[in-house]
Amino acid sequence: MNDNKLIYFDNNATTKVDELVLEEMLPYFCEKYGNPSSMHTFGGSVGQKLKEARVRVADLIGANNPDEIIFTSCGTEGSNMALLGVLNANSGKKHIITTKVEHPCVLNAAKFLEKKGHRVTYLNVNSDGEIDLKEFEESLNEDTALVACMWANNETGVIYPVEKMADIAKEKNPRTKFFVDAVQAVGKIPVNAKNTNIDIISISGHKIHAPKGVGAVYIKKGTLINPLIIGGHQEKGRRAGTENVAGIIGLGKACEIAGEYLDDELTRVRALRNKLEKGIIKNVYNARINGSRDNRVPNTTNISFEYLEGELILLHLNDLGICASSGSACTSGSLEPSHVLKAMGTPFTAMHGSIRFSLSRYSTEEEVDTVIESLPLVIEKLNAISPFQSQLNQLKDLKIVNSR
Amino acid sequence: MNDNKLIYFDNNATTKVDELVLEEMLPYFCEKYGNPSSMHTFGGSVGQKLKEARVRVADLIGANNPDEIIFTSCGTEGSNMALLGVLNANSGKKHIITTKVEHPCVLNAAKFLEKKGHRVTYLNVNSDGEIDLKEFEESLNEDTALVACMWANNETGVIYPVEKMADIAKEKNPRTKFFVDAVQAVGKIPVNAKNTNIDIISISGHKIHAPKGVGAVYIKKGTLINPLIIGGHQEKGRRAGTENVAGIIGLGKACEIAGEYLDDELTRVRALRNKLEKGIIKNVYNARINGSRDNRVPNTTNISFEYLEGELILLHLNDLGICASSGSACTSGSLEPSHVLKAMGTPFTAMHGSIRFSLSRYSTEEEVDTVIESLPLVIEKLNAISPFQSQLNQLKDLKIVNSR
Repeated sequence: MNDNKLIYFDNNATTKVDELVLEEMLPYFCEKYGNPSSMHTFGGSVGQKLKEARVRVADLIGANNPDEIIFTSCGTEGSNMALLGVLNANSGKKHIITTKVEHPCVLNAAKFLEKKGHRVTYLNVNSDGEIDLKEFEESLNEDTALVACMWANNETGVIYPVEKMADIAKEKNPRTKFFVDAVQAVGKIPVNAKNTNIDIISISGHKIHAPKGVGAVYIKKGTLINPLIIGGHQEKGRRAGTENVAGIIGLGKACEIAGEYLDDELTRVRALRNKLEKGIIKNVYNARINGSRDNRVPNTTNISFEYLEGELILLHLNDLGICASSGSACTSGSLEPSHVLKAMGTPFTAMHGSIRFSLSRYSTEEEVDTVIESLPLVIEKLNAISPFQSQLNQLKDLKIVNSR
Repeated sequence: MNDNKLIYFDNNATTKVDELVLEEMLPYFCEKYGNPSSMHTFGGSVGQKLKEARVRVADLIGANNPDEIIFTSCGTEGSNMALLGVLNANSGKKHIITTKVEHPCVLNAAKFLEKKGHRVTYLNVNSDGEIDLKEFEESLNEDTALVACMWANNETGVIYPVEKMADIAKEKNPRTKFFVDAVQAVGKIPVNAKNTNIDIISISGHKIHAPKGVGAVYIKKGTLINPLIIGGHQEKGRRAGTENVAGIIGLGKACEIAGEYLDDELTRVRALRNKLEKGIIKNVYNARINGSRDNRVPNTTNISFEYLEGELILLHLNDLGICASSGSACTSGSLEPSHVLKAMGTPFTAMHGSIRFSLSRYSTEEEVDTVIESLPLVIEKLNAISPFQSQLNQLKDLKIVNSR
């Protein structure tokens, strides 16, 4: 693999730090290294810079007040804050509603809470990965303390109607808190808390071209929270520990840039993704797209190559310098098929051979063309050695018939 | 204040990132930005680099196995892991022993646990800030689940005999877990888990010239832990969330360098601290040192200027471009006097006027000379406007008598 020719289509796993983000961070390592909590000007000026970052994050996600932003160490910590920190602080209610397709940081926190005596409803999704608003409405009740629903799915890119869901939740039970994991949505589609009933939003820096190790949570004014990390007075007592100064400054800059690039994401990146998808579907008879085609973030496509093993495909793509992913990075290493595709009722024969391509502002048409050209050859090779020849031949015949 | 002439004597609050540390981190922002959990070589090679960092941290603190190191987002998270994560995982026992002079991340976690039904013994310290081993031994019992004692105090620099205490604890009750907050000790004195009875050690990157936002916890093999942050499989399931890759790499390098600089710390830095201290004591009649003079980390001195307000002194030092601290940064902003000095029985008249100077490998003799020269003038000015003239005059007379 030649790094110079690397095609990085794994931006839902993590992204390149924007050069402008790094530039903004750099002085805060070896020059302006003061502790923002210190009494001297040297530290205090760092505190001022953190305020700027807080405003930038607030602006991107439509917080009314920068104080509604709490910095975290990652998206996972943000989700944990919502499920473990906000839940118990706001009511003694025991019921949680989430979906079957959430990120492990939500699902595993929900499982943890089940062991602690909470009751959790896991909403189903249809074959397009979408939830049924009626099922959601019916699952809400007097005891519902928290709803946790992602804004966009990390594996398929499918978007959830969280604003509408928050309205439904509050109408049914005004005391229910509504949490949105927006890690995979922010920077890709408009994510705005303003004039919504959403109480908590978590985002992660490294998915929007800030470094790994920093995130933020929006917590609407009036929403109580028990800190997850206990100690000093930082973040107004809501998250102790010396601030990840450079990371936070990077996150702030990345949020500013994400706002500027949103149009690019919705137009150019979307067009690239669509071209990639069409090119693959056209040239690979056993390829099928997972998840709603219309109701998706613009950068993501999840494609199953039926009767093949996703990890083997990735290995071959890796040899060509193409980075993609099967399932999510946070569940990688396990041989379990994707819980997201499983919830969507994806056939077993397609579930194991799913590949996610996720583009970014750095993706180019040339890269898309290269993948469209080289991927079908990889699949052809793997199809040839698959033990499922008769099934593959059936699919091939079907494709020929359909395209006549 | 002119940044170029800044005298930074606040290294217990935070430190300058070593240029070599930053250099090692830099490629991991915009070039090698892969997710270590990804299947492709681009991400996997980042995972390899994290292994190197883990080995470097393990080497510095004498872990037998790099897998005993878990990366965290800060020292506070590490302490929380010990108190909230290890405690409940290892026994149903309810008793915790700690000291009255711990960092807020330990004290506040202990208070939290008291509310949850745990019983906490807070060990006393004498006027030198030292604990009584006999009192400690007597406080241990069959129900003691955890002992939490810092290796060195952040405010005074006083060192605690944690290795001996761990022996005592294990002899009395082999099931008791022994946690050491070594955030202020590592890099300043030898901190080595090998051949000790210590089970858990936490360190923080930004106190040893790595960036803010990263830390590590040593957890001895066989010590169970409930993760504080729940989600993906990272850190072998003990700490979820995408790793702070650049920060961890920086921490690894900083640990390597800290090992190399330990001698400098124990000799040159100690000599500078001693010179600073002597110079101040000699020229300021109302100055007194807080904490044991012999049993201290080499970089720290905590000096009270009796009958003065510490914050006012800091303000004047700040105008001269000298950064120091009153109490710890993590408790700054509160008007409460230091809980550490309070526990030591420091007189009220000395408690409010305490200043901590904390040096580092970057401190120079020229800087020390400048402070020795300028600080007495500041104190003289403030003494002149103090409402405690008769008390100050008494001290002055005493000093003249003593120095005859």
